[in-house]
Parts: sequence; structure tokens; C-alpha cells
Amino acid sequence: MNTVNALIKQINGLKSELSNKDFLLTWEQTPQELQQVLAIADALKTLREENIATKVFNSGLGISVFRDNSTRTRFSYASALNLLGLAQQDLDEGKSQIAHGETVRETANMISFCADAIGIRDDMYLGAGNAYMREVGAALDDGVAQGVLPHRPALINLQCDIDHPTQAMADLAWLKEHFGNLENLKGKKIAMTWAYSPSYGKPLSVPQGIIGLMTRFGMDVTLAHPQGYDLIPQVVEVARRNAAESGGSFRQVDSMAEAFKGADIVYPKSWAPYQVMQQRTELLRQNDHDGLHTLEQHCLAQNAKHKDWHCTEEMMALTKGGDALYMHCLPADISGVSCPEGEVTESVFEKYRIATYKEASWKPYIIAAMILARKYAQPGAILQQLLEEGQKRVK
Amino acid sequence: MNTVNALIKQINGLKSELSNKDFLLTWEQTPQELQQVLAIADALKTLREENIATKVFNSGLGISVFRDNSTRTRFSYASALNLLGLAQQDLDEGKSQIAHGETVRETANMISFCADAIGIRDDMYLGAGNAYMREVGAALDDGVAQGVLPHRPALINLQCDIDHPTQAMADLAWLKEHFGNLENLKGKKIAMTWAYSPSYGKPLSVPQGIIGLMTRFGMDVTLAHPQGYDLIPQVVEVARRNAAESGGSFRQVDSMAEAFKGADIVYPKSWAPYQVMQQRTELLRQNDHDGLHTLEQHCLAQNAKHKDWHCTEEMMALTKGGDALYMHCLPADISGVSCPEGEVTESVFEKYRIATYKEASWKPYIIAAMILARKYAQPGAILQQLLEEGQKRVK
Amino acid sequence: MNTVNALIKQINGLKSELSNKDFLLTWEQTPQELQQVLAIADALKTLREENIATKVFNSGLGISVFRDNSTRTRFSYASALNLLGLAQQDLDEGKSQIAHGETVRETANMISFCADAIGIRDDMYLGAGNAYMREVGAALDDGVAQGVLPHRPALINLQCDIDHPTQAMADLAWLKEHFGNLENLKGKKIAMTWAYSPSYGKPLSVPQGIIGLMTRFGMDVTLAHPQGYDLIPQVVEVARRNAAESGGSFRQVDSMAEAFKGADIVYPKSWAPYQVMQQRTELLRQNDHDGLHTLEQHCLAQNAKHKDWHCTEEMMALTKGGDALYMHCLPADISGVSCPEGEVTESVFEKYRIATYKEASWKPYIIAAMILARKYAQPGAILQQLLEEGQKRVK
Repeated sequence: MNTVNALIKQINGLKSELSNKDFLLTWEQTPQELQQVLAIADALKTLREENIATKVFNSGLGISVFRDNSTRTRFSYASALNLLGLAQQDLDEGKSQIAHGETVRETANMISFCADAIGIRDDMYLGAGNAYMREVGAALDDGVAQGVLPHRPALINLQCDIDHPTQAMADLAWLKEHFGNLENLKGKKIAMTWAYSPSYGKPLSVPQGIIGLMTRFGMDVTLAHPQGYDLIPQVVEVARRNAAESGGSFRQVDSMAEAFKGADIVYPKSWAPYQVMQQRTELLRQNDHDGLHTLEQHCLAQNAKHKDWHCTEEMMALTKGGDALYMHCLPADISGVSCPEGEVTESVFEKYRIATYKEASWKPYIIAAMILARKYAQPGAILQQLLEEGQKRVK
Repeated sequence: MNTVNALIKQINGLKSELSNKDFLLTWEQTPQELQQVLAIADALKTLREENIATKVFNSGLGISVFRDNSTRTRFSYASALNLLGLAQQDLDEGKSQIAHGETVRETANMISFCADAIGIRDDMYLGAGNAYMREVGAALDDGVAQGVLPHRPALINLQCDIDHPTQAMADLAWLKEHFGNLENLKGKKIAMTWAYSPSYGKPLSVPQGIIGLMTRFGMDVTLAHPQGYDLIPQVVEVARRNAAESGGSFRQVDSMAEAFKGADIVYPKSWAPYQVMQQRTELLRQNDHDGLHTLEQHCLAQNAKHKDWHCTEEMMALTKGGDALYMHCLPADISGVSCPEGEVTESVFEKYRIATYKEASWKPYIIAAMILARKYAQPGAILQQLLEEGQKRVK
Repeated sequence: MNTVNALIKQINGLKSELSNKDFLLTWEQTPQELQQVLAIADALKTLREENIATKVFNSGLGISVFRDNSTRTRFSYASALNLLGLAQQDLDEGKSQIAHGETVRETANMISFCADAIGIRDDMYLGAGNAYMREVGAALDDGVAQGVLPHRPALINLQCDIDHPTQAMADLAWLKEHFGNLENLKGKKIAMTWAYSPSYGKPLSVPQGIIGLMTRFGMDVTLAHPQGYDLIPQVVEVARRNAAESGGSFRQVDSMAEAFKGADIVYPKSWAPYQVMQQRTELLRQNDHDGLHTLEQHCLAQNAKHKDWHCTEEMMALTKGGDALYMHCLPADISGVSCPEGEVTESVFEKYRIATYKEASWKPYIIAAMILARKYAQPGAILQQLLEEGQKRVK
């Protein structure tokens, strides 16, 4: 329990306003706030491993709103709620985009009378997902101000069009574990690179989340993609500014090999070009199935020109000592396993398979930490209480 | 906690047989029983606000059976179960009408081995919903008598073809809160009126629930609708009898303006005529899609003749002091917001938006109160125990 | 509580390796292990009836994977999880058969970070269901060995292509209750016989589970079916061997009347011939809708030749004293009730209706017992602890 005590001490020493704001983009949080979430997640994971229950809620609902299919995120969120003592309740709105205005305002209040957390995943429509979350947040604030809601539920961004903060923070927690501490990440080279996949339309939020967050801790971040596979320009600008402020660096290259050279960490993953996502958003809004089909055909043909963006043994040999840490948010498109040709070869993936599982295992704790930080101005004190009460999770 | 103590005292002083019967129609309960449910709901809401947990069940299932789509009622029921410590489990029968007889009897028992509550929403088929609930109730009674079930789950009517008791009781709880107490409702004028909506086929259970319940407390209830938009005649008869017994009044008029004149409370809401619901039930049973389409077209044309049944500023000006309390079960059809022309103008709705949210916020507590009253012969004693134990809901 | 104390003493006296292996087929467990599960189930049921909570988990998830529709098993599993303090989380993979290899390995780990139990129902594909469960089990073992998972979730077979262990064990628990104890089952005659049903393609796992389990306790087991309605030959071989070892007997006949003669217990139930299930599996894999339709027509015609395999009063009159115990996993095809002609007449079913409900009521406790036995090397000690703590299930 020395670990937990040390973490609590660290948490108490960090200045944080997280109990007064939603964690919707990592770059809206201060470095100390990010560190606090990491430390809370670590404490919760350690308590769990020590068989100490972390149920701070004795009843209460956690709402989930998933606007596309999801297994991993759904289970991570469900696990986080369960860790804290909340019961999950799914809001099934259909997969169509929700009307804004009165509907959002009303629904947000109607589902929240007994809710302590609302997790939203909305990454299909460029320009809409994060905006929708803010609209929900404002409705909840209003509900509290008007005396409709007894308290403000934590709003959790489970992936939007701009960022995927629970993924990026889980990835960072994994890097912290792998390299020992955050300090050790300074000067580490990480390559966030596009990779070929036989599908199209994968969201931008993972690469954007990675370059938006990893540039905060003095790392040397390289973004690599074929020409035309841009991310949202404003997010790239955020990454550039972050790097300058944190004492790290940020650069863009158009070659996977170039990005891999000397890298400590590689994150090869497919995504759709920003411009394509804009067109796709428009076509989805218009329900233009023919247009969507034509766009898909065009993009798949375009993708097929870049099959050499493939994380192979040869590519890995270019990295530092030939054994950079391979990362992926999963599921990866593994050549010859989940598809004929994909993002990564079977032999590379197999070597890092367990590492990617451990990377993923942080997500429930990151989400739980975000909820805890939003609900308690003194999260250290509540963890201290859990530790002292020492209720067994399993008899 | 003085509030809760006073409520417990009140609860203890009320004569009630609610632990021995299902609460399927408000008019089958005595005035004291209705008051008891209101007082229990109030106590539960206050305990929650004071951060005292109300988990009387340490494990147990609450089953939900929804035979049509529902967000609000689903969340209210889930919240009620969670408040009491039960886990929700959904019985998904598809949306087709369930066979009766052996299937009902068997299913009711199969899902209830570990169940403490069963909530059913079945409002599509006139003559069937409430009857189905009674069939389930009889099967549960038999299961207990035969030693199959260890105890009788509470059966909750989450809306049927005849009544919507959780809605009507939540509405009444809101009126009690708004006007200070039940006594103050005596002599208040409430207008339950039809209003235009661009959809057809909205159930009769809300207006029927309102006239069936509000006539119990000495209110002056006016039911208003265009000619032909009748409710189930037997329910209108119930309202008439109730009013006579409670010292209030009940009248029917065919003009919204007439109903609004001098009203303290207005409840403008669309519904489908009783005769149409009968035809619709028959067509649904026969799976006659063409017939349903023809009926819908006919009804929409009929509705369109009554667009002047619209809750406008001018209409509101007719009410007492020009500021009657506007009520709605939500979602309302708001002209220019959720539809081009609807039940209420945006300006009227906006003025009462927060009021309608507060009205809705009672539903989880009303449902929880109904479960509590069904499970405990001495609900006051169990509330007293919760109060004394004082377990925190949130650490 | 004398009952529970006696059961705990019995549990402590039984040698069991159940905490180190999954309970995937009853014939892979020793007689003492089977007895231990029965005794744990009995203790849990008694504690529940005595209003003592059995929540050994203070938070934790139980995952469900249902590859076909299910109401009864779903509710039994949900009830078992709830009894133990776990929250249910459904993995919805769609109904298509899951890819094997990496996908299984990855998914098994991804859903298990906070899971204590995984229940799988996969009975559609002959040769695949049980194999899939073992693949999941191996992935979980690997996850624990690699440090990805903090502990090994219990894997529960909720029905596969070979066995239906939770059903067969619940049936055995019911027989133990009905006849007083396991010892009394020695020499009892049980007839597991095919019966006519207007549907085809019912799985083999129930009759296979029954002959595979009931032959363990010295019963005289008769398997009866029309020519060509074979079960999986290897399972019939298992039953034969079991009977030889337990001092009971096993025989096959091709007449329902022959099987019923002098029987103490009858279990008339439809199933599809083994060879048909093989063809069906192949056609399902090929997505051959025409082929499936042709096969169905052929089988229904074949079935129709055997409408005399009908559990009638006359047939029952052949049994011991004319009043053998009728068993069924439910729902039964009741002639004139759920179908024109089926497995059993209304009058026979009605006589044993409550008995079949009681039979079914054991399933939640059997599943909970399997989870408990998998998680605790000393299940008796944990039951002792529950008894001593004596936390009320309902206040």
C-alpha cells in the first residue's frame, strides 16, 4: 500500500480545477491536471489489484450514449462505472445524428435525475461530436443552476471528432508504466504514422489525440502520412504549440521509414484524410448512399497506392535498437490474420501483442479517474478514505 | 431531516393496503393510499438530496418489459430500481403482442425467481395492456402460492391502454410541490385539453390518467377536445364519479379557449380518438399495413382541421392572472422547434420549460415509492431505518 | 440455518479441483465435484430464502455472450450474477459465428480486465460451440499468465453443441430435491425420449446433457428416439461408460412406449438428428439459405411421420404407478396450447406445470454455484462467512 500512499501524496500536491470542468480535450487541461488523472488511475488500479473496493458511489447511474458500434470502449466505460459503484444505463438514440437545441437540452436533463456520469461516443460527424458534448454539458449546467438536477454528472468524452482523450490518456499511462515515469518520456521519439488498411473512414481522433497529448511531455513527436492524408489543421497547430511549450519537438514527414528511424515508440494506424471526412460528413447528413459509395471506392483506390505503409520487421529494424515499443488502440489490421494486407505484419504484432493488451488495460482506470476527478475537489482524500476503510472487493 | 421525520409520521398515520395489491389504476387506490405513495416519494427524494442511500435491497433484480419505444419511462424506472438497490434486466420480447395463457404464466414465473419488481409498459393495444398486466399479476400470485417464487415481485404499470399511473402520480407530486400541499389543490381549476400535433396515434393513457386522478382531490377538472376525440367512456365516467365524491367538479367542453378560461393549470396534449385507437388495435392485430396507412392519412387530415387547438400566448392570457401553470408529460410538440405546427408555441413552452423538467423529475421517486409500498406493510418503518442508518449515497 | 451448516460440512468434505478448471462438460468433473456444485447451489438457495445476502463480490462484471436468442438462460445467468454481487454486461457480437484465432484471444482479454465471470451460449454450430469456449478459456489463462488479467474469470458454459451443463445440473438438483437425496436416485428409471414438435433444428445439448449426467448416479437411463434421430455418437458412448462405472444402466430403444414402461421419470423433448445438425452447420457456414430451407422442409416432413411420439395420458399410464415425474427444460411444445400438435398434451403438462417451474428455479443457483466453485478453493469457508455475517438481502 506504499504505492497508493505515495500516489495520494502526489495527487494532493497537484493543482487541479478538474472538479469544475469537463475533460473534453486533453489540451484544455493543465499538465498538473493530466498528471493528477494519471495518478488517480494508478491508485485505482493498485487498489483493485490489492483487492480493495473502490465504490465511492453507493447506488447511482452512469449513462452511456454510443453513436456507433463499440466493444472495447463500451466495456472500458462499463468497467469504470462498476469500479466506482455506478450502474450502467444505455441511451439508445438510434445511430442517426440527434437533433440539437431543445431535444438535447431536454434529453440531457431527463436522463440525469439520478445520474453521476454520462459518457458519450460521437466520432462520425466532423465538426459535430465535440460540439454536441459541449451542448450536453451546457444543458447539464443549466439543469443544476435551475434546481432541476441535484448535482452535476461527470461528462466523459469516449471519443469525438477531434480527440479521443480516454484512449490517449490510457496510452500515456501505459508509456509511464513502461518507461518508469513521466520524466523518462522527455526526449523520447514517438512516431505516429498512418498505415495501410483495407477499410476507409477510420476516425481521426486517435492520431489527433496522440499528437495533442504526447507533445505535452517533452517528447519528440513525428507525424507521418502520405500526402493528402492530413489531420484537422487546428489540431496539428495545437501539437506544434504544445511541443514548443513543453521543450519537446513536433515535425511532419511523408514517409513511414523516415518517422521510424531512431524512434523509441511507433504507433502505425490507418485513418481517413481530413478532407474525406468532411465530404463524408456532408454525405452522411444528406443520407446520400450513392455518394458515400462513390467516395468509398475512390478512397479505397487511393489507399491502395500506399500499401507500403506497412509496419514490417524491416520497418521496425529502423527504430532505436531495432526494438521500439509498438502501440495500437486495437483492433489492428494484421496482415494475413484479420485481413490480407494491413497495418502490421503478424510477426511484429505477435511480438507486441501482450504489450498492446496492457496498453488497453489502462482505459477503465483512466475513465474512472476522470469521473473521480470531476466529482471530488479533493480526490486524494477520497482515495485515502478507500484505503483506510479497506473494504474487500472479493470476499 | 425534519422533513423526512414529518413525512414518516404522515406515512405511519395513513391506512394502506398497498402491500397486498398492485397499483395498476389510480382509481383503484384509496385517497390515503395515494397520499402515502406521494409521501414516500417525497421522503425518498429528500433522503437522496441529503446524500442518504435508499438501498433497501442488497441485490435483487427489477425486470422491465417495454412493448414500445421509451426513453423517459425507461430511465425513470431504471433510476427507481437503482435507488432501491435493484439491478435492471430487460425482457426483450420483440414488439409483437405476446401470446396469452400458458406463455404469460410461464414467462412471468421464469423471470421472477430472483426478481423484486416487474415494470410493464404496454399501451398500444386498446383493451389489452392493462388486462395483460393483470394476467401477469395473477401468474405471480399463483407462483407464490405454489411455492415456485419465494416472494411476490411488485408489479408496476409503466403505462397501459387505460391509465399511466406513474405519470399521473408524478404530475400530482409536482402540483403538491408547486402549490405547497394537497389541501391547496382544492378548488383549483385544471384544463386537460387536446392539442394539435402533426402525428397521430398518441395514447389515451395520459389524459385519462389526469382526469382519473386529479378529480380525487377536489379540483375543478375540465376535459376539452374537438368533437370526435373522445376518451374511453368508462374512464370519463370514473372521472365524473370521482369529482362528485371528492367535492370537486368535472366537465367536458369542445373548445380549448373555454377550458383555459380562469384555469390555474393547463395540460394541452395531443391524443388519438378512442374510436381510432379501437380501429388501430384491430388493424395492428391483423398486421394490416395498408389499413394502418389509410387510417393514419384519414386521421392526419382530421387533425389538420384543428390546428387552432394550439397553446399560444393569447390562449395563456385567458387563464387565471394570465399565468396558469403549464404542464406536459414531455416531449411536447413545440411549434417551430420540434415540428412546424404543434401543441404549444416556443415562447409559452420556454417560459415553463424548467417547470416541466421538475414535473418529470418526480417520476423515479414515484416508481420507487410504489415498489416500496408494495414490498413493505410498514413503509414508514423502513424509511426510519434508512434515516437512522444514514449510509452515504456518495462518499 | 441448520440446513446451511449441514451443507457447508458436506461441501468441506468433498474433494474438488473445480477452482482450477472450467466446468464445460459434466463428464469432465468427478462425482464429488458434481456433488459439491449441487450442495453449494442448495446452500445459496437456502440463504436466499432466509433473506441472507450472498454477495461475495463487492463490484465486478459478469460478461454474457449469447450467440442465439435466449430468455430463460439469460435471466438465470443475470440472476446468478446478481446473487453474487456482479453486474451483467452483454457482449453483442451479432449472431454470426465469430472468427477464431487472434480475434478470440484479443476479445477475451479486452472484456476481462474487470470481469469475474464470462458466460457463453453457443449451440448452433456442431463441432464449434464447446471448442470456442475452450479457445476463450485458453486465451484467459494466457492473459493471466502474461500479467494482462489480474485474475482468471470463471467461464460458464450456458449451452454448447455437446452439453448443457447448467440445465442438466439444475435438473439433477431438482431430482435430488424431489426424491430427497442423490442416494435415492440409485435404480430410478429415467426415460430421455424424443418427442414430436412442429419445429426442427432444436439442439442436441439437452438430451446429451441428460444422458451424460444422469448415468453418473446409478440411475437406469433409457434413451429413446425414432430411427435416424441419433445423438452425437461419442456422447452416447460417454453415457454407456458412465452407467457401467456408476452401477446404473444405459440402453437405447426406438419406441417412446418402451422407454416409458415402468419409468420413474420421463423427459420427452424434441431434437434434430445429429446428421441433420451436421448438414445444417455446413449450410449455416456457407450462408446457404436455399439449402437451409430445403433441409428444413425435408426434416419437417420426416418429423411429421412421428407425431405418435407424444406424451399423452395413455403414455403416462405406462410409467411406474402411472405417475412418473414429467420433466422439461421449457418451453415445451404443448398440443393445442403452444402448437396444434406437439411434445405433450395439455392435460399431462398442466399436471406437472408447477413441477417444471420448480425444476427451472434451480438454474440461477447452479450457475452461481459454478462461479463460486471456480473462484474459491474453499467454497465452504466463504459460505460460512456469508452465514456468519448474516447481511440481510432485503432490509
